Amino acid sequence: MTDTVAARLAARGLTLPDPPKPGGMYDSVRVVGGVAYVSVQFPFVDGEVVFRGRLGHELTTEDGYRAAELCALNVLAQINHYVGFERILGLNRIEAHMLTADGWDDFPKVLDGASRLFIDVLGDEVGRHARALFGVERLPLDATIALTATLTLRP
Amino acid sequence: MTDTVAARLAARGLTLPDPPKPGGMYDSVRVVGGVAYVSVQFPFVDGEVVFRGRLGHELTTEDGYRAAELCALNVLAQINHYVGFERILGLNRIEAHMLTADGWDDFPKVLDGASRLFIDVLGDEVGRHARALFGVERLPLDATIALTATLTLRP
Amino acid sequence: MTDTVAARLAARGLTLPDPPKPGGMYDSVRVVGGVAYVSVQFPFVDGEVVFRGRLGHELTTEDGYRAAELCALNVLAQINHYVGFERILGLNRIEAHMLTADGWDDFPKVLDGASRLFIDVLGDEVGRHARALFGVERLPLDATIALTATLTLRP
Repeated sequence: MTDTVAARLAARGLTLPDPPKPGGMYDSVRVVGGVAYVSVQFPFVDGEVVFRGRLGHELTTEDGYRAAELCALNVLAQINHYVGFERILGLNRIEAHMLTADGWDDFPKVLDGASRLFIDVLGDEVGRHARALFGVERLPLDATIALTATLTLRP
Repeated sequence: MTDTVAARLAARGLTLPDPPKPGGMYDSVRVVGGVAYVSVQFPFVDGEVVFRGRLGHELTTEDGYRAAELCALNVLAQINHYVGFERILGLNRIEAHMLTADGWDDFPKVLDGASRLFIDVLGDEVGRHARALFGVERLPLDATIALTATLTLRP
Repeated sequence: MTDTVAARLAARGLTLPDPPKPGGMYDSVRVVGGVAYVSVQFPFVDGEVVFRGRLGHELTTEDGYRAAELCALNVLAQINHYVGFERILGLNRIEAHMLTADGWDDFPKVLDGASRLFIDVLGDEVGRHARALFGVERLPLDATIALTATLTLRP
């Protein structure tokens, strides 16, 4: 499964990064009761948040799409490192909090950046999911999007 | 159970609508590991968000109550369509994000619009739940409230 | 386990308070499917929110740390009252919504107030957790932080 994930990422020009390290007293992934709870992920590349500021102001919808994809890539990196893809039964729900400007309303288009990556890379049965999305005022490191994901493990 | 739900809704002058369709690459309800994760629901009626703007500014607390009730009705519509009420062991926690104006603080009264509907229609054992509520700056389609629900299925 | 928790709290100068009562039609803790869903907790002491306003404006990061700790203490009070510590297999993920001012960015330091309490008091295996954190515009009662927690029970 890791090889399949790596190959599918490579076909999109992506590689699985090292997972971002926790910035406080918490686990990046907590596995308990057959569920993997992933801590909120940001559009980090090599320890830097690469998409900052408000969608519809400093950033475009296309930037947001790529930022959401990066968050999803970091979720996959955490799962690869702490759980292993072969243990995943399915993604449950993803939740996105975005920094947005007045009048901007491309929430679903942006979050499709994450949804498409999960479905393409994990496959439809494992990667499909419910989701929720919100516009907030401030996020750590001025990241334009924060993605929370939860996955169910095989029994 | 569907008949009971329908009768209880009718007693309140409500009918189960067609469930709103997803506006992106996600499932309206994701069932995995014995849990139904419902995607965030808005106060949609016939494909239109009917409560828009800020509570305490464009909208009153009473509007918010009815908006929360509509979100809950759409959760029920999704459950009816994708899962079936007879499979539900219980509602877990509901989470509400609301557009609010400075100084307005009727969060719990508004969310009771959803809580009451769930308890009245699903019955106390199935419909009771924990909850959380937040005031945010922006929501898709300028909807005044966004409701996220998760339900546990019978083994 | 309750004695252990009480002793560990006492070592920090804390005692388990009476759990805050629900302010609407919901349960403070909903137990279903082997999971305890705790309703959102605020920095209440004796029925009063004692930390109000924005971090980085009315309140300091140190205030925020203590506010997060108080929220965590109230989560423990709810678990003690409605579930019992001996039934807890592990904390899953905690989520914090904070009122913050422009330019303030000590989110992780503040939430460590909750994370440290959970780990110190419940022990590393039970108390460790994933987490997520967001900056929002408004919270009920102008509370500076709102903490949502979910715990898995022993089979």
